[in-house]
Amino acid sequence: MTSSSPTGGGPGRPSALAPEIADRLKRSADGLLPAIAQQYDTGEVLMLGWMDDEALHRTLTTGRCTYWSRSRGEYWVKGDTSGHFQWVKSVALDCDADTVLVKVDQVGAACHTGTRTCFDTDVLLADQ
Amino acid sequence: MTSSSPTGGGPGRPSALAPEIADRLKRSADGLLPAIAQQYDTGEVLMLGWMDDEALHRTLTTGRCTYWSRSRGEYWVKGDTSGHFQWVKSVALDCDADTVLVKVDQVGAACHTGTRTCFDTDVLLADQ
Repeated sequence: MTSSSPTGGGPGRPSALAPEIADRLKRSADGLLPAIAQQYDTGEVLMLGWMDDEALHRTLTTGRCTYWSRSRGEYWVKGDTSGHFQWVKSVALDCDADTVLVKVDQVGAACHTGTRTCFDTDVLLADQ
Repeated sequence: MTSSSPTGGGPGRPSALAPEIADRLKRSADGLLPAIAQQYDTGEVLMLGWMDDEALHRTLTTGRCTYWSRSRGEYWVKGDTSGHFQWVKSVALDCDADTVLVKVDQVGAACHTGTRTCFDTDVLLADQ
């Protein structure tokens, strides 16, 4: 692990995220924030990923939603492998700066299983 | 801390959650899953809370969204203090069973700051 950069990197990874954002993030013990991806026009909740400071920085500046893969330990531009990009429309933090909401335009399926969202299959309680 | 119950309690807390659900949950190190609350008809993402097995069980069986408060270390029925209940309409797990999506009918403001959602104020990137 490298040390955090002076420009606001999360624990272990340097980042170019603006300090005025980085300074108020409330990260988990592993330096991450949950990031909800929502289809900007239909309102569908597509998936939840994780971002460190640099993933948030890249999401804000590249126009493509970028996560930190906890399983692979690397940055992950959604769509780089599948072509199912998430084009960023807007980004907001929640009231205590520990969660990210990214509104996106999802190309194709958000879920690696091929369904539109990651929440389509495992329904525990149906419409009440 | 008490030990987990044989019926599927998360680390440290007993739970009556059905074993067929509990057995496939992929919890964080502290035994929790992020839970996204979404307004069922408008699609607004209202907030993100955290659930352990028992909070999920209560959400599924009481009709009111129930979280585990990480800061207070106790169960938290949304609305018990504020009156801003979240009436549960549907509950789903994501494709790898580590995130919950609860569609609710939100009474009043979801956010403790008084805004409708927790994502209304801190916009990092506006509509592109």
